[in-house]
Amino acid sequence: MHRYRSHNCGELRAADVDTDVRLSGWLHNRRDLGGILFIDLRDHYGLVQLVARPGTPANEALGSLTKETVVRIDGKVSARGADNVNPDLPTGEIEIEVSEVEVLGAADQIPFTINADDGVNEEKRLEYRFLDLRRERMHRNIMLRTAVISAIRHKMVTLGFNEMATPILSATSPEGARDFLVPSRLHAGKFYALPQAPQQFKQLLMIAGFDRYFQIAPCFRDEDARADRSPGEFYQLDIEMSFVEQEDVFGPVEKLMTELFTEFGNGRTVTSPFPRIPFREAMLKYGSDKPDLRAELELVDVSDVFAGSGFKAFADKHVRALAVPDTADQSRKFFDQLGDFAVQQGAKGLAWVRVGEVPQDLEGQGGAPIALSGPIAKFLTEDDVKALVAALDLKPGHAVFFGAGEFDEVSKIMGAVRVEAAKRVGRFVEDEFRFCWIVDFPMFEKDEDTGKIEFSHNPFSMPQGGLEALETKDPLDILAWQYDIVCNGTELSSGAIRNHEPEVMYKAFAIAGYDKETVEAEFGGMLRAFKFGAPPHGGIAPGVDRIVMLLADEPNIRETIAFPLNGNAQDLLMGAPSEVEEARLKELHLTLRKPQAK
Amino acid sequence: MHRYRSHNCGELRAADVDTDVRLSGWLHNRRDLGGILFIDLRDHYGLVQLVARPGTPANEALGSLTKETVVRIDGKVSARGADNVNPDLPTGEIEIEVSEVEVLGAADQIPFTINADDGVNEEKRLEYRFLDLRRERMHRNIMLRTAVISAIRHKMVTLGFNEMATPILSATSPEGARDFLVPSRLHAGKFYALPQAPQQFKQLLMIAGFDRYFQIAPCFRDEDARADRSPGEFYQLDIEMSFVEQEDVFGPVEKLMTELFTEFGNGRTVTSPFPRIPFREAMLKYGSDKPDLRAELELVDVSDVFAGSGFKAFADKHVRALAVPDTADQSRKFFDQLGDFAVQQGAKGLAWVRVGEVPQDLEGQGGAPIALSGPIAKFLTEDDVKALVAALDLKPGHAVFFGAGEFDEVSKIMGAVRVEAAKRVGRFVEDEFRFCWIVDFPMFEKDEDTGKIEFSHNPFSMPQGGLEALETKDPLDILAWQYDIVCNGTELSSGAIRNHEPEVMYKAFAIAGYDKETVEAEFGGMLRAFKFGAPPHGGIAPGVDRIVMLLADEPNIRETIAFPLNGNAQDLLMGAPSEVEEARLKELHLTLRKPQAK
Repeated sequence: MHRYRSHNCGELRAADVDTDVRLSGWLHNRRDLGGILFIDLRDHYGLVQLVARPGTPANEALGSLTKETVVRIDGKVSARGADNVNPDLPTGEIEIEVSEVEVLGAADQIPFTINADDGVNEEKRLEYRFLDLRRERMHRNIMLRTAVISAIRHKMVTLGFNEMATPILSATSPEGARDFLVPSRLHAGKFYALPQAPQQFKQLLMIAGFDRYFQIAPCFRDEDARADRSPGEFYQLDIEMSFVEQEDVFGPVEKLMTELFTEFGNGRTVTSPFPRIPFREAMLKYGSDKPDLRAELELVDVSDVFAGSGFKAFADKHVRALAVPDTADQSRKFFDQLGDFAVQQGAKGLAWVRVGEVPQDLEGQGGAPIALSGPIAKFLTEDDVKALVAALDLKPGHAVFFGAGEFDEVSKIMGAVRVEAAKRVGRFVEDEFRFCWIVDFPMFEKDEDTGKIEFSHNPFSMPQGGLEALETKDPLDILAWQYDIVCNGTELSSGAIRNHEPEVMYKAFAIAGYDKETVEAEFGGMLRAFKFGAPPHGGIAPGVDRIVMLLADEPNIRETIAFPLNGNAQDLLMGAPSEVEEARLKELHLTLRKPQAK
Repeated sequence: MHRYRSHNCGELRAADVDTDVRLSGWLHNRRDLGGILFIDLRDHYGLVQLVARPGTPANEALGSLTKETVVRIDGKVSARGADNVNPDLPTGEIEIEVSEVEVLGAADQIPFTINADDGVNEEKRLEYRFLDLRRERMHRNIMLRTAVISAIRHKMVTLGFNEMATPILSATSPEGARDFLVPSRLHAGKFYALPQAPQQFKQLLMIAGFDRYFQIAPCFRDEDARADRSPGEFYQLDIEMSFVEQEDVFGPVEKLMTELFTEFGNGRTVTSPFPRIPFREAMLKYGSDKPDLRAELELVDVSDVFAGSGFKAFADKHVRALAVPDTADQSRKFFDQLGDFAVQQGAKGLAWVRVGEVPQDLEGQGGAPIALSGPIAKFLTEDDVKALVAALDLKPGHAVFFGAGEFDEVSKIMGAVRVEAAKRVGRFVEDEFRFCWIVDFPMFEKDEDTGKIEFSHNPFSMPQGGLEALETKDPLDILAWQYDIVCNGTELSSGAIRNHEPEVMYKAFAIAGYDKETVEAEFGGMLRAFKFGAPPHGGIAPGVDRIVMLLADEPNIRETIAFPLNGNAQDLLMGAPSEVEEARLKELHLTLRKPQAK
């Protein structure tokens, strides 16, 4: 028999009754029922119940051990009585009559509870992460992460992509965030940088002629922690393809995501195909370029209705309306609460009306077929009402909410109201993954303060229409071959068809106010590569951590990573960062800067 | 039709004749045969021949383009005449009559030749790596690497292992080599370290209850470059398993390696099962703990024969003999050349004898049945000869080579002579991968100078016999559960069953002269984890780069990595390491140390 186990703790069944077995695992739980010890033995694969009868050496041995001790036991599988079968446990039909016990790994008193959630704080959990990871939820999350990443790799290979590792010790890149630096010992005063993303390397792989690249790529940004981003390192599914247009990128990514979220969504469905929503339309309809399509309500731009209106609050502003069916009969409290929500989002208040039927006895008198009531109804002219009815397709029973102000501000507030209202009136679909592509981002925008033309998003995207568009169109009308993939209101990634033509790049930067010399000084490396035969190419890089968070339904990224840094960028388990010896600093040609007096 | 291609450059066949096609790729080669242009168009998938007839716009367009320009062409597939079929090319039965040409990516004059080996130096190749990777050999090497790593992952999952990423921003670890440090911005004066290996994290995963872990793990050591190790970063197949003994680790690794080297060995076979060779035996028989078993000769320790001998050169020394069949009739030059080789290895010379038959007329006169001749024959007594004949099973036709001296020195020299001799006499088997496991490494050794007992290799390995062995045996007789996997003379990895019991660890360190306080100060983190229920566990970490080098048959590791640092730890493509701005240093609480006057 094997030194440690004939079976694991999750695999014994009724068919194994009377088999002599050897098991190893952790003492998960112990109950003493009139001297008989019932013990749950746990390993990676499951739980199994041990029984030690009074007066046996096994009883004596097991009675004195602390929880989480690692033991090897020998015993015989026996059937549980019908009353004692545990249908929730795969091994619930059997138990093991223990004949021999060996301690393999002793356990001191554990600082928190493994077999139940005891509300211990996260710092303590991270300090003892090797214990925290024994908890069922964490174990399941990490195994989900493992399975998801393994499935991504398998599916990407099936889709014809090749995984290639790019350097981690690399050069500073112009991604925009702050790099982590690594001092060089051999080259005094010089530093490597950890990659914020393998953006340049993946483009170089395309220029080198590798057709379809992917990588589960470690990325590093020295930025403050957020709930959905670890400080320090994170992983993205980095993808790049040659000889492609936008839809060629969407195809495999959509297939991957649909399969992945169906397979690991725990019953949640995926709506496919993913709608393509132009950026401008997304801002108008959803108030966001990360729309949560589970909320089945849409905003309507009614600015035109109030152009030149006497209603000062709306006149000549961006006015967005949200019509919500079957809501007119909600209580005043409902409307007040949604108003409070809007205020929390930064609104001054939330205008609304109820839509009712015109009373029978007023019909035929030339009034509106529909009557609006509520705080702002009195400010609306008959023409306003007619126009709103047409624009919003209003029916009796609707309630309408309004926001007015600057475009971005009103979008943000009414976008949030849209989702909140949908949740409150039962028009928010749980248990679905609703993806979309946001497309047609503007290439340039005007700085409101300076009036200067700037890049809207990624200066390295190919403008739609290429060089001709740059030379002939109003820059503010030029769109980019740039796109986001969004799921349930979470942006998984931006991507783009890259600008691979030096002449187009010089021109695009010229519009944004950069001369050729500056472009060459800043981006000379990539420009040089583009000059030796670059293929058209594009890609995307969905965040692996965010995918896992969505699938695990965990709002905190650290719950899906085995050994995360804490929110303060510290590894509490290993004690990083830490001080180093003077000799090491000397080797690296560095001295510590004295703290400045305040 | 797709904007860029209906087919790739590797897939058209005779069955596609008369099809209208669109292809995109690089202009690999161009020949002008009486005005007809023949062009090889290349992409990731292959090569295809284009034809442009004189006087056509296609001829004009293609005639003026530089090599490596990226073009899109439209055309019709036509059959090549029987005389022009190229059987070496999968597309060799067809060519494309080009009707239209579009330049997608212009190319300046390329700094070296892509479609042939022009002997350009490595620095230039690394500076233009995106071009160098277009070359057939490099493209094939990188794709081999990709396929090998993908296969490793697939096979490991099939074997029941789960891939888990461990942190890259971490703490200094006691692996022995020099860490790369990463200054912290948030924590003034403190540093992260890049992992030399995920050793501690993988052990913590075992303590956390994950049963079978693997990772294609990036590792970082700030060490000087070697032919088989990149400066900076390298990858290992990191493996750890719980509730295992040594053979439980060997099983899946042996299966993996056998399958992998069979699948990607390009016809080379794998000898399986892998022999288990105790360390001491390996040193005696092969003069090395990394024996190249393709050399089918073995050393024999004949020290006993010369104990107390009057032959001073051998008396009371470690004497190792190599008997080589069918070699006695080699020329004097053969023996001299092998002697020169031994001198290059550090020997003072190489003693040897030829083994011949005793002439008929001397038989029956009580002489040796075998006669030795050659430089040292005259120093051998009759008893010496008898003993050598028995120990080496000498037959007429053998030649015997001798080395004498200190154990390590004579092992090294005669180990090298063994392989060299095998190559010179045709007893070296090419085209096979001969793996072995080296086992039973000594736990401790005595420092020759100080007489102090020290750890031989890894202090964290479990001693064979556990605590009892440590308490009762001579430390120099204690073996460790430690092992190496070796292939064709290359060590792919060390591994061990870990010491997971704090009491055993304290005792082992005490023998090596460390008191409990020192052990706790140095290794407190792991010791703490071991005290909360640690399972027996062990693992290994074969070098991915070395595996790929063996399979690709490349002696330089940089030929198997897309973007390696050069031997001087520089990225010549991206310009790393590089200087950084004073503001960045200030943020990181650092100043550069002034160079010291010499």
